[in-house]
Amino acid sequence: MDWLKIFRAEKKSSAQTAKERLLITVAHQRQGEGNGLHFLPRLREELLAVVRKYVQVPDEAVQFNVQRDEGLEVLELNITLPEKERRGGVASH
Amino acid sequence: MDWLKIFRAEKKSSAQTAKERLLITVAHQRQGEGNGLHFLPRLREELLAVVRKYVQVPDEAVQFNVQRDEGLEVLELNITLPEKERRGGVASH
Repeated sequence: MDWLKIFRAEKKSSAQTAKERLLITVAHQRQGEGNGLHFLPRLREELLAVVRKYVQVPDEAVQFNVQRDEGLEVLELNITLPEKERRGGVASH
Repeated sequence: MDWLKIFRAEKKSSAQTAKERLLITVAHQRQGEGNGLHFLPRLREELLAVVRKYVQVPDEAVQFNVQRDEGLEVLELNITLPEKERRGGVASH
């Protein structure tokens, strides 16, 4: 899957072009009439907790979004990274 | 961002159509010449650990993929969910 193409298109169309962001998506693709995953709401909180181990992220910098359709559920965490992390707190890897 | 459209297209084109999957992506969009996030490799392991709290996922069911381009880095975890979870271990939410 060409994520670079997808996220580049999104970046261009976004009003947040000037921001540095971390965009986390969790997509659950299921077959037929199966139910959604009961743990997705908790997963959302835990993913954010993991990110917060490494980056200081205030609540107002996080947007949650859930999209659902038959056989597909997508959870999105859109995190705007703080200035401090962008300037000094981010090391090469 | 229309994730349903993106993941539906991916599902159709995937050879794994018959599988139930959890697809996690972490996209880091940065500005200008900034470095990548040093914690992405650790984040990968921690995200998988969080998922494993809820679903039994053997190592062979997990595929990692990283895509990089100027100003953009995308980490992908492609997890094929086990039959057991799909049949009985997944509750509605």
